[in-house]
Amino acid sequence: MNDLAIALRQNGNRHLYEQIYDYIKLEIRKGKLRFGEKLPSTRSLAEFLQVSRSTVELAYEQLLSEGYVEARPYRGYFVCQVEGLFGLEEAGQMPGSAGPAAGAGGKADIDAYADLAARDSGGRWGNGGASAGYGAVFSAAVYDFSPNTIDMEAFPYATWAKITKNILVNANSEMFTYGLPKGDYELRETIAHYLHTSRGVNCSPEQVIVGAGNDYLLMLLEKILGRHVAIAMENPTYKKAYRIFESFAYRIIPVAMDSSGMSAEGLRESGAAAAYVMPSHQYPMGIVMPIGRRMELLKWAGEEEGRYLIEDDYDSEFRFKGKPVPSLQASDRLGKVIYIGTFSKSIAPAIRIGYMVLPAQLLKIYEEKCSFYSTTVSGIDQKILNEFIKEGYFERHLNRMRKIYREKHDLLLNELKGMEDQFGIMGENAGLHLLLRDKLGRGEDRLVRQAQEAGVKVYGLSEFGVGEIPPCWDGDMVILGYAALRREQIQEGMRLLKKAWKY
Amino acid sequence: MNDLAIALRQNGNRHLYEQIYDYIKLEIRKGKLRFGEKLPSTRSLAEFLQVSRSTVELAYEQLLSEGYVEARPYRGYFVCQVEGLFGLEEAGQMPGSAGPAAGAGGKADIDAYADLAARDSGGRWGNGGASAGYGAVFSAAVYDFSPNTIDMEAFPYATWAKITKNILVNANSEMFTYGLPKGDYELRETIAHYLHTSRGVNCSPEQVIVGAGNDYLLMLLEKILGRHVAIAMENPTYKKAYRIFESFAYRIIPVAMDSSGMSAEGLRESGAAAAYVMPSHQYPMGIVMPIGRRMELLKWAGEEEGRYLIEDDYDSEFRFKGKPVPSLQASDRLGKVIYIGTFSKSIAPAIRIGYMVLPAQLLKIYEEKCSFYSTTVSGIDQKILNEFIKEGYFERHLNRMRKIYREKHDLLLNELKGMEDQFGIMGENAGLHLLLRDKLGRGEDRLVRQAQEAGVKVYGLSEFGVGEIPPCWDGDMVILGYAALRREQIQEGMRLLKKAWKY
Repeated sequence: MNDLAIALRQNGNRHLYEQIYDYIKLEIRKGKLRFGEKLPSTRSLAEFLQVSRSTVELAYEQLLSEGYVEARPYRGYFVCQVEGLFGLEEAGQMPGSAGPAAGAGGKADIDAYADLAARDSGGRWGNGGASAGYGAVFSAAVYDFSPNTIDMEAFPYATWAKITKNILVNANSEMFTYGLPKGDYELRETIAHYLHTSRGVNCSPEQVIVGAGNDYLLMLLEKILGRHVAIAMENPTYKKAYRIFESFAYRIIPVAMDSSGMSAEGLRESGAAAAYVMPSHQYPMGIVMPIGRRMELLKWAGEEEGRYLIEDDYDSEFRFKGKPVPSLQASDRLGKVIYIGTFSKSIAPAIRIGYMVLPAQLLKIYEEKCSFYSTTVSGIDQKILNEFIKEGYFERHLNRMRKIYREKHDLLLNELKGMEDQFGIMGENAGLHLLLRDKLGRGEDRLVRQAQEAGVKVYGLSEFGVGEIPPCWDGDMVILGYAALRREQIQEGMRLLKKAWKY
Repeated sequence: MNDLAIALRQNGNRHLYEQIYDYIKLEIRKGKLRFGEKLPSTRSLAEFLQVSRSTVELAYEQLLSEGYVEARPYRGYFVCQVEGLFGLEEAGQMPGSAGPAAGAGGKADIDAYADLAARDSGGRWGNGGASAGYGAVFSAAVYDFSPNTIDMEAFPYATWAKITKNILVNANSEMFTYGLPKGDYELRETIAHYLHTSRGVNCSPEQVIVGAGNDYLLMLLEKILGRHVAIAMENPTYKKAYRIFESFAYRIIPVAMDSSGMSAEGLRESGAAAAYVMPSHQYPMGIVMPIGRRMELLKWAGEEEGRYLIEDDYDSEFRFKGKPVPSLQASDRLGKVIYIGTFSKSIAPAIRIGYMVLPAQLLKIYEEKCSFYSTTVSGIDQKILNEFIKEGYFERHLNRMRKIYREKHDLLLNELKGMEDQFGIMGENAGLHLLLRDKLGRGEDRLVRQAQEAGVKVYGLSEFGVGEIPPCWDGDMVILGYAALRREQIQEGMRLLKKAWKY
C-alpha cells in the first residue's frame, strides 16, 4: 500500500514509458535487478500496470538500446551485466529529461517484481491483484481501495514480541520437536473455545485442525472430500477459492444470489455435492445470509449423504451494525458444515494460521486417510498465538480494530454523501469493504478506468465473477475496500474519485 | 523421547494391565482426560503399546467397573464425569496394590494420547511410529532407538531468541502482511546460495519454493505433476512419502535396490514417469548412490519428456566418512530433478520449513497453475531463518551437531563390537541411524520383540517396505537410530540389547 513500485502518474511531466524505463534502470543500477534476471513480458507488465503494451515495449527498447537489458529470441528480456555501477549512484535520469525518477521502491516491491518476472504467463495480474493479496504492493494506483488488505498499523507489536520472548526464554527440546498433525492440543482447545463464545460454533478441540492458511486447509479438505466433487459457489465469489477448486479439477457450478445470498433453489438444481458459502458476510457482495436461507441450505445438505456446506467465515470479527451474526455451523444439527476461519484478517496475514472445524463424519475420514500429514504450522508460533488469545490480547486487539475500522467505514460512508444520485451503497453493515451500485449505466469498466486515470484503484465486481455474473443486480458495481488506507488517504482518494466520476 | 506416557515395564512388580489402568485413571483424575473424551480402541492401543489386546481390555474393564469410563455400544469407551476430583489428588493407586503409579507424562503425552484416541482406526501405530514422527513420545519402550528423531539439546536457543527479538523490535506492517507465494525472495536467495555451496545444487532463487514441510511441498508438487502419475519408489523407503503418494492415488511401483541404490533396470521396466529417490543417504538403507548409478537414473529421465526424479535430500548434512557427496541435482543437465530438502533435521522439526527446487519446465507449470497458492510459512519465521543462516549461526550449529552425532555414532559402533558374529553393520557412513543385518536367521520379528521385552525399541526393516521387500538382502535387518539418545542411554540400551539378543 505505502510502497509503490512503479507509481505511474498519468498527468506527470514524464511519459508513462519513461517512468517505467526510469524505474527498471534504477533497479538495475542499484543492483536490485541482477545480471541474468528476466524482466516480465511486455504483455504481463502492460496488463498489470494497465497501460498499453506498446508503452512497455518503448521502455524496454530504451533499456535495450542503452545496454541495460538484452533480448533473447523467444525468451524475453534479461538484465545485462552492468559492472561497477552498484552502489555508485543513487538514481539515474533518462538522458535529455529532467523529471523526477519514479519509485525508489522498498524490498517488497522488488520481490513482487521478481515474481512478476518469473510468472510471465500474465493474465492474472490485471484482474487478480485483489484476490492474490500482494497485488497492491505492486500497484499502479496511488490510492488503492483494495478489499483484501488490513490495517497493520495498530497491531500490538510490542505485546507480540513480549509473548514471543517469554516463550523462547522457556524454550526446550519438546517445543522444537514434531508437533501433532492437527496442531497443538492447547491451541485447538483455545480456538474451539473462542469459536464457541464468539461465533457460536459447536465443536470439540478434536474437530479443529490448525493449518498454514486457508489455501492449505482447502488442499487438505480435498484429500478428505476426494476428487470429482461438484461444488456450488456463490456468484460473484472469492476468486482465490474458485481458483483453488479449479486446480482440484472440481466441477464448479456458479449459483446465483438474491439479497439473502445463495439461492437454495439454485443450489438444489445445481446437482452439487458441496457448496462453498460465506453466510456471515459474503465476499464481495457483503450479504448477510438470514436465518431462513441458512435453514434452507442446511436442509439441502441434510437431504443426502455426502452433502456438505463449506462455511468460509473469513472476516466475521468485523461487524458494524445490528446484532452479531452467529456462524452457519452454529445452526448445524446434522454435522453438515465444514467451518473454515483464519487469523489473517484479525491478526496478520503473515502469521499464516487458519483453522478448519470438521463435522464428525469427515473427521473420521481425516483420521483414517490424512492424519499422517504433518502439521504445517510452527510449534513455536502455535504457542505464541495460544498465549495471545488466552491472555486476552486478541480480544483487546479486536476491540481496537473494530473501533478503527468503524471510523474508517463511517468516514468512507460520509465521503460518499452527495453521490446518492450516482450510486447505491451495498454491504455496509460488516466487513472491510463496501460496494457502489452504478445508477447511471456508465458501466464498470468505465468507472474503474476513470478512477485509475485519476490515480485511484477501485475494483470492478466482474473480477469476482465465476463466468457471467447473473444480471440480477440493478446496475454495475465497483468495490471499495478501506482497511489499509489512512484517514487522509480515504479523503483524498474520494476527492479524486468524485472528480473522476463527475458527470 | 524423554517423556514416556505409559512407560510399561515388563519386569516391574505390577502387571501390564495395571500400569495401563494406573496411567489412564491418573490422567482422568488430573483432569487431563476429560468428560466425554473417547479412549483409543483396545485394538489400536494394544497395537501401539505392543501388548496383547486382552491386556488393554483388562485395564478398560477395571476402569469401567470403577466408573471412570463408560462403554457405548459400537462406539467405544468414554471418560465419565468425575466430579470434585480435579486437582484434589496427585496420584491414584489401584486398590490392593502398592507399586508406583506409572508415567506422569507431560503435555506432549496427553496430546499424543488425545490424537491416538481420535484416530482409533489403528494399524498405523504399531508400525508407523518411526515414520509418523511423534510415535516416540507415546512409546512403550524406555530406550527408543528411533531413526526419526534429532538431538535438540544442543540447539542454540538463546541465539534463536536473540534473532527473533531483533526482528520483532524492528517489526512493521510490511513484515506482517502477505508474503510472496514462493516465500521471501531474500530467504530463497539464501537457500539457493546455501544449497549451491553445500550440496552443489544449481538453481536461481526463482526456482526455490519455501513451504511448510515436505508433506506440504509434495502436495504442491502433486498440483504441478498432475494426477495419474506412476511413481517408482525405492523398496524399502520412507513410509511417510509412500503414504502421501498413496493419498494422491498415484500408482506406486516399488523398485528393488542393490548396493548402489535403486536399480536402473528396474526403474526402466517399471513404466513410471517419476521416481522418488534419496541418493545421498537412502532411508532407511543408508545407501549412498554412486555417480554411475546417478548418471543411469538421469539418463532414464532424459529419455522421455515428462520424466522426473524427485530427490529427497532429507539429512545430507550429516556424513561421517569420506568426501561430501553432492546432490543428484548437481549432476542434472537436463532439468529433470526436483530437489526437496528440509530444516527439520538440521534445525528443528517444529519450525516447519522446507524447500523445493523446481527445474525450469515444472517452474513454468507452477507459475501458470499454482502460483496463486499463498505461502505456508510465516513471514516472521522466514526472516528469522534467513538471519540464522546468513549470519553464520546455521553453519556453526551444523558443525556442532556433526560433532555430537559423530560421537554418538562412534559410541554406538563401539558398543556393537563383539556382536560381529550376530550382525553385519550397514549404512554407517552417514545419517542418524544404522542397520544391523542378522546373520543367524533369527528373523526381524523375534529381534524386535526380544528388544521390546527388555525395554528397548528397535525398528524392523519390514516397517519401511512397500509391499514385500525383495529378499536380496542377506538376512533380516533391524534399524537403530541414535540421534535423540544421550550417551548413557545408548550404552544402557545396548547393554540391554546384548542381553536380550544373547544366543
